[in-house]
Amino acid sequence: MEPPSPLRGIFAPVVTPFDAHLEPDAARLETHGRWLLGQDVGLALFGTNSEANSMSVGEKIALIEALVGAGLPPSRLMPGTGCCALTDTVRLTSRAVELGCAGVLMLPPFYYKGVSDDGLYASYSETIQRVGDSRLRIYLYHIPPVSQVPISLALIERLLAAYPQTVAGVKDSSGDWSNTRAMLERFQPRGFDVFAGSESFLLATLRGGGAGCISATANVNPAPIARLHRTWRQPDADAQQAALDTVRGAFQKFPMIPALKAAIAQFTGDESWATVRPPLVKLATDQRAALIAALQPTGFSMPGI
Amino acid sequence: MEPPSPLRGIFAPVVTPFDAHLEPDAARLETHGRWLLGQDVGLALFGTNSEANSMSVGEKIALIEALVGAGLPPSRLMPGTGCCALTDTVRLTSRAVELGCAGVLMLPPFYYKGVSDDGLYASYSETIQRVGDSRLRIYLYHIPPVSQVPISLALIERLLAAYPQTVAGVKDSSGDWSNTRAMLERFQPRGFDVFAGSESFLLATLRGGGAGCISATANVNPAPIARLHRTWRQPDADAQQAALDTVRGAFQKFPMIPALKAAIAQFTGDESWATVRPPLVKLATDQRAALIAALQPTGFSMPGI
Repeated sequence: MEPPSPLRGIFAPVVTPFDAHLEPDAARLETHGRWLLGQDVGLALFGTNSEANSMSVGEKIALIEALVGAGLPPSRLMPGTGCCALTDTVRLTSRAVELGCAGVLMLPPFYYKGVSDDGLYASYSETIQRVGDSRLRIYLYHIPPVSQVPISLALIERLLAAYPQTVAGVKDSSGDWSNTRAMLERFQPRGFDVFAGSESFLLATLRGGGAGCISATANVNPAPIARLHRTWRQPDADAQQAALDTVRGAFQKFPMIPALKAAIAQFTGDESWATVRPPLVKLATDQRAALIAALQPTGFSMPGI
Repeated sequence: MEPPSPLRGIFAPVVTPFDAHLEPDAARLETHGRWLLGQDVGLALFGTNSEANSMSVGEKIALIEALVGAGLPPSRLMPGTGCCALTDTVRLTSRAVELGCAGVLMLPPFYYKGVSDDGLYASYSETIQRVGDSRLRIYLYHIPPVSQVPISLALIERLLAAYPQTVAGVKDSSGDWSNTRAMLERFQPRGFDVFAGSESFLLATLRGGGAGCISATANVNPAPIARLHRTWRQPDADAQQAALDTVRGAFQKFPMIPALKAAIAQFTGDESWATVRPPLVKLATDQRAALIAALQPTGFSMPGI
């Protein structure tokens, strides 16, 4: 087994704890981050499941400064830094690179729909030039069900040609395996790391030569997901995948982010974890009970949290 | 003719000029704003057509401070202040109210799709409470083709019940007249001002008792649009509407924001007006020639710009 690269393997888009005033809570984020790192799961801070776009750039910078200041290894951090505004993206990305983050996961600007590849190319290109740091590694974030702004294979081709040292990979959250497979076949052989958008496609992605996955449920089920990444060549890999799918299926019966936070609240006994920022809404009491009931037969647990 | 209320009538989502470094240019924005105000068109700064979400909150605050500082009347300003992040929305809205803006046009948080009315209600409610200023007047911004997050009639009902002094109206950019008509019938009689999302529905909206329109093309065709608002009870109203539609139709053959800016560049002779921020792309030379050619038979001009 080759030693894992800092930015290959399993990453969690780390859920963000908020306090009673809806302010981000760096101390609880650090605790959760350390628990994930201890199970070989890296931290894709400020992902979709982190409610990243429900926070200001200033709030995100304060959180990442707190985590790095507390000693979390920047080599295992892949914060999301893509905002609607070019200047916001540049500011957040620059700070992440200065703090030593090994990579950033970058949404395209997502307010305007139907924009051209020329416009998206210009967004990434201008950002790369403004950040102006050879340490920058960008993982493109393709999540059309939410962003509604896809990253086409042609755009990846063009960015790779122009910035081969900087454009390092992609997270494919399209939910469309044919797209992930196309990315794996076309770009992975050139050292462009393809991450599945959830563990549902983890085994298939690894068999296709991919880098791993960045998955919501890695927040709550990190050890079994990381185990499949370590042992995917073993005979029980398909059984492992099926077990992961069962746990994920229980969460997918509910709105994902509130469900993740409800589970963490339940298993830590820290009720404040259930808090979300608007426009999200936390699980109702009966939904939470139904989630816990749905998880029970899967053998789900969160040891050590 | 009754004297117009400061926030009724015609508003332009004012296009934002950028300089060669893609920085917002307050001086040219002021010039354009004064030209619009001189033709009885108010300034819906930071709308979709302003590339508002391509600017940071700090950039937007600097622009509005510059305009108010230069003496533009805040009573005729309706800046867009709805961002993805609650804290951004509160910061920008608070500053707009402090500067005396008569109203704000507020997008819902638009990153997450399929969010509930409960979540959207919480977003607006929390924002109103955090701004905590009785001068705040919110115009809800319903633009599902872009935001992908609609504002339902039920949500308006609930917000009006809770905040009748604050929730002042809506801009309906759904492009669905049956929705605008429903808003007019249900809410306009209660003093909730319904603005059409373009002048295409201006006459119908005024005949339905509505407040006016907030339209991209008011940036370039302000006087004829404002004239219809003043004279819509006259016998030539349908002919006026048809003439407005013809001009708008020429612009709609092209991406709207680059086309507006190309026209302003053409008629001012100031080529820098054509600049857009990524992810938008300015009109190509042949597109611009085609736009000017399409406008020519309509009699379009921009007197005094």
